[in-house]
Amino acid sequence: MKLDTSASGVYSIAPTPFSEDGSIDWTSVDRMTDFYFEAGCNGFTILGVLGEAPKLDAEEALQLASRVIKRAAGKPIIVGVSAPGFAAMRSLSRKVMDLGAAGVMIAPGAGLKTDDQIAAYFRNAVDAVGSDVPWVLQDYPHSTGITMSNGLLKRVITEHPSLVIVKHEDWPGLDKITALRGWEKDGSMRKISILVGNNGLFLDFELDRGVDGANTGYAFPDMLVDAVKLSKAGKRDEMHDLFDVHLPLLRYDHQPGVGLAVRKYVLQRRGILSTATMRKPAPAFTAETRAEVDYLLARLAKHDARAKV
Amino acid sequence: MKLDTSASGVYSIAPTPFSEDGSIDWTSVDRMTDFYFEAGCNGFTILGVLGEAPKLDAEEALQLASRVIKRAAGKPIIVGVSAPGFAAMRSLSRKVMDLGAAGVMIAPGAGLKTDDQIAAYFRNAVDAVGSDVPWVLQDYPHSTGITMSNGLLKRVITEHPSLVIVKHEDWPGLDKITALRGWEKDGSMRKISILVGNNGLFLDFELDRGVDGANTGYAFPDMLVDAVKLSKAGKRDEMHDLFDVHLPLLRYDHQPGVGLAVRKYVLQRRGILSTATMRKPAPAFTAETRAEVDYLLARLAKHDARAKV
Amino acid sequence: MKLDTSASGVYSIAPTPFSEDGSIDWTSVDRMTDFYFEAGCNGFTILGVLGEAPKLDAEEALQLASRVIKRAAGKPIIVGVSAPGFAAMRSLSRKVMDLGAAGVMIAPGAGLKTDDQIAAYFRNAVDAVGSDVPWVLQDYPHSTGITMSNGLLKRVITEHPSLVIVKHEDWPGLDKITALRGWEKDGSMRKISILVGNNGLFLDFELDRGVDGANTGYAFPDMLVDAVKLSKAGKRDEMHDLFDVHLPLLRYDHQPGVGLAVRKYVLQRRGILSTATMRKPAPAFTAETRAEVDYLLARLAKHDARAKV
Amino acid sequence: MKLDTSASGVYSIAPTPFSEDGSIDWTSVDRMTDFYFEAGCNGFTILGVLGEAPKLDAEEALQLASRVIKRAAGKPIIVGVSAPGFAAMRSLSRKVMDLGAAGVMIAPGAGLKTDDQIAAYFRNAVDAVGSDVPWVLQDYPHSTGITMSNGLLKRVITEHPSLVIVKHEDWPGLDKITALRGWEKDGSMRKISILVGNNGLFLDFELDRGVDGANTGYAFPDMLVDAVKLSKAGKRDEMHDLFDVHLPLLRYDHQPGVGLAVRKYVLQRRGILSTATMRKPAPAFTAETRAEVDYLLARLAKHDARAKV
Repeated sequence: MKLDTSASGVYSIAPTPFSEDGSIDWTSVDRMTDFYFEAGCNGFTILGVLGEAPKLDAEEALQLASRVIKRAAGKPIIVGVSAPGFAAMRSLSRKVMDLGAAGVMIAPGAGLKTDDQIAAYFRNAVDAVGSDVPWVLQDYPHSTGITMSNGLLKRVITEHPSLVIVKHEDWPGLDKITALRGWEKDGSMRKISILVGNNGLFLDFELDRGVDGANTGYAFPDMLVDAVKLSKAGKRDEMHDLFDVHLPLLRYDHQPGVGLAVRKYVLQRRGILSTATMRKPAPAFTAETRAEVDYLLARLAKHDARAKV
Repeated sequence: MKLDTSASGVYSIAPTPFSEDGSIDWTSVDRMTDFYFEAGCNGFTILGVLGEAPKLDAEEALQLASRVIKRAAGKPIIVGVSAPGFAAMRSLSRKVMDLGAAGVMIAPGAGLKTDDQIAAYFRNAVDAVGSDVPWVLQDYPHSTGITMSNGLLKRVITEHPSLVIVKHEDWPGLDKITALRGWEKDGSMRKISILVGNNGLFLDFELDRGVDGANTGYAFPDMLVDAVKLSKAGKRDEMHDLFDVHLPLLRYDHQPGVGLAVRKYVLQRRGILSTATMRKPAPAFTAETRAEVDYLLARLAKHDARAKV
Repeated sequence: MKLDTSASGVYSIAPTPFSEDGSIDWTSVDRMTDFYFEAGCNGFTILGVLGEAPKLDAEEALQLASRVIKRAAGKPIIVGVSAPGFAAMRSLSRKVMDLGAAGVMIAPGAGLKTDDQIAAYFRNAVDAVGSDVPWVLQDYPHSTGITMSNGLLKRVITEHPSLVIVKHEDWPGLDKITALRGWEKDGSMRKISILVGNNGLFLDFELDRGVDGANTGYAFPDMLVDAVKLSKAGKRDEMHDLFDVHLPLLRYDHQPGVGLAVRKYVLQRRGILSTATMRKPAPAFTAETRAEVDYLLARLAKHDARAKV
Repeated sequence: MKLDTSASGVYSIAPTPFSEDGSIDWTSVDRMTDFYFEAGCNGFTILGVLGEAPKLDAEEALQLASRVIKRAAGKPIIVGVSAPGFAAMRSLSRKVMDLGAAGVMIAPGAGLKTDDQIAAYFRNAVDAVGSDVPWVLQDYPHSTGITMSNGLLKRVITEHPSLVIVKHEDWPGLDKITALRGWEKDGSMRKISILVGNNGLFLDFELDRGVDGANTGYAFPDMLVDAVKLSKAGKRDEMHDLFDVHLPLLRYDHQPGVGLAVRKYVLQRRGILSTATMRKPAPAFTAETRAEVDYLLARLAKHDARAKV
């Protein structure tokens, strides 16, 4: 199933499970794939930075994509294809689309300096992956170093019908959502799916501002699913109540670098991953950090039974 | 009273109060000064970026420092003197120390590129302000673009006896605290005061890691004071309980740019500032944002009476 | 005399002369002022980065501006007023215009990230200095970190009638000149003065592309004057011949940091400055560097008598 | 033949020749390979940024390496293996070493922020490519955004015996050469080969400072060869004379982006490449630019017969 602009709900960002010897842990890959759908996600994204994609070689990346797409059995898998060159982007994109991916995710390349350069970059990227391939624009200045103004985002959305989802993770970013939704309403921009990232740190108010869901990797995607449902059911206070009990851990999980180690550890404690192993070079996961995550989980478990792990 | 390495507790970061016409609101300046000390802060910092310092001309900056220092009546006022040139840093620093400031705050200058360049910068800065002037090193990579490794921080601490406080706001930064405290313990580095910034987003675990307090501008400094006290009294769970009820607002207040507008608005609602006015150029403070802050305050008020405003 | 869009020829960028004890060397200031006009410059710019402006305190900066403007006796002096805040920019600008400056120079502030942010910055800057004050836009990405697309430059030129000169120092930048001159020709943009910077490293072809002159600080401004004259007289080959004999030194002088030390040394050898002293912190000017400059001057002297110093 | 620290003379940086339809032009690949050796180069580097490496897919990159290495028949070919991830670096490095490459070139990865992070990066890189593989450290801050202090460079050189060449292209960088050569002389650092890049813009004085040669891609590598020879023969003035007549073109060729288009055009005019085609996305190569290169070649031809093309 190909992605389109009706995408809503939760699309998680998946880590890549490794065994302790650093090889891909295929059992955990399968279990993780099943978990995301059982947790209520509508799909998920692999080979993002959080998937340790740069530590996989080309063959491994394709094996992973193949295994996950097959296991997903038609449910949408998005593949990160950001690369330093358009040749690699073209190559990976075509291969994973042939394998049955639902679409690809593209972030602006490093070093772009003006609105025109960013717009040109996306034209080259669409040319590389093919204008028939649905794609997710990752708008994540903290990671890419590239800031897109509201107007530029509108311009890129307008230029590319194959752009179907904005992964919104600008910060601060609430008014950007309001601007985009306003342009949809007054007819000056076509309707697009807006899913939020940034680990969901502002998911509560982003839902209030009208986003369609989340495309992020917090270790409790099932909470994200519930939050989106509560919001769509008009239960604002309940949604905020649920979100707030998760916020201490979610904020902790959101740290760059070590956050991925935290996330893998929580997924291990939840029984999804067999190990929390990261491939080298990996951030330090100290005893203090581990104890803090345990403490956060224990506190969370008082309010959300899913944290009793 | 001059700052020294025994500094602990809470030193707030103060905004600069303006009237609606953009002039400095001296009544609010006085009320704010009193408020910080009544709230239990041991001191506070003026003329930081959050104090809109670049929007004050030199005369206004000195008038503000003079008024606040006088009103503080001997309690410690720290003055931000970061400047693009050492001449301006020298000039402002000497003037405010003459007025009775307790010390100055210095961040590494923009564009420094190597450990050696950063170390040289601080040598020039200490030369400019005078080696007898106590200073706070602001370690805030998100804002300055300059990252200091643990080892470099140790080197700068060792080189400069007049450096008395590290305003720690690196992110992620918990293990940096543990490293510094470890070096103090094993005697390889002298004891220094570590106060945390970054709006206190990790204050809970930073206290667990052994920091001496906070030097940050969250709109409820009285909560920060209580959190530090609970931590020092060994009441870890109570401290986390208190912190967690504030986290949704604290996270919202932490947004770059608009966060200062939020903070001024909360201080206005608390009766400290007469207006939430910012000088131009100011970030947008939209109706949606205001409503969200009201909602956050209403939710917070259920758990902390200080938010009933 | 106020600057306007008819500016052409050479406007040098002046260093600030210091005595060996670090104080401003007023005798050299006067001699340097006279020298630039005797060399055929139409004016010059003070208090740029190359003028070590950040190492002067506010009083010194005004004293320097006052002395130079008085000595220039009506000939145009441009003052750099780039500052981290609009209050300082406003204050300095108004004071130097009152002293009789011909206009001010403004570069985009650090950290601007989108076309809209850059355009907003210049609106705030014009608001600060006053819309009646003629200004030079310094388009120098290597130094500011801000790249302006051709289209954005056109937009800023169109928005601000008080913008009279573009100090063009983008690199590569030849096609930008052709684009701007093309828009002037087809009537889609008003006529503006384009003077080149970047130490004149591409002055030869920039003249071929139609710029009006130079606004840069190479230590032989008299060569720049001759090059512009030859170009305007249609003597292309002679202009390139002259330029080429200077290129080895000009390229050497163009190095960031140490280049200013080189320039001051050459001006000392030419008898303009009494010393080559820079205020701290200064780049190293090693014995090897000095010997290389001597060697370059000796080689240049074979082709241009002005280098016999 | 594997690279070692005795490397001296000229190692050019090669472009990737394309036919007008964008496919690799194998005839030109062979002719170019022969040309570099006939011009007196001791070897050359492929798959650098100037080789448009990011526009080749993995298969093409290996085909190119294979063809060139075979044609070189034992003479040293260096392969650029900088990549966003260590998996890709490991994979490419091992494959090209198996094909007979003489060594690999590695630049520090984007986003490294402290001396310790940079040192760790090179440890991971050496681990990836294998500690038995000779490598060239590309020290090019303008392109990578990473500045290495003299001390850090010494530290990395000391840590890795397999590091055999520093491709020095820091700017300004003359005193860095003097510092490294000084440490070799006083025995505090092992002897290493220093070859200069940055298009050779300072080759003249870099030779004076004692570098071993050049590792850069100026379109007249035969001039670079002669300059190195003159320097080694103690003919300083003749070396500078030769260099100076090339400086106008060399400086033009040095422009980022369009410089590669210029270089390909010059190599086409010299009969080495069949076309000057670049793969998309390519910088504009305007009619004005082409005419300027023709003019520069015509002027150069008066002094150097090799430019009569």
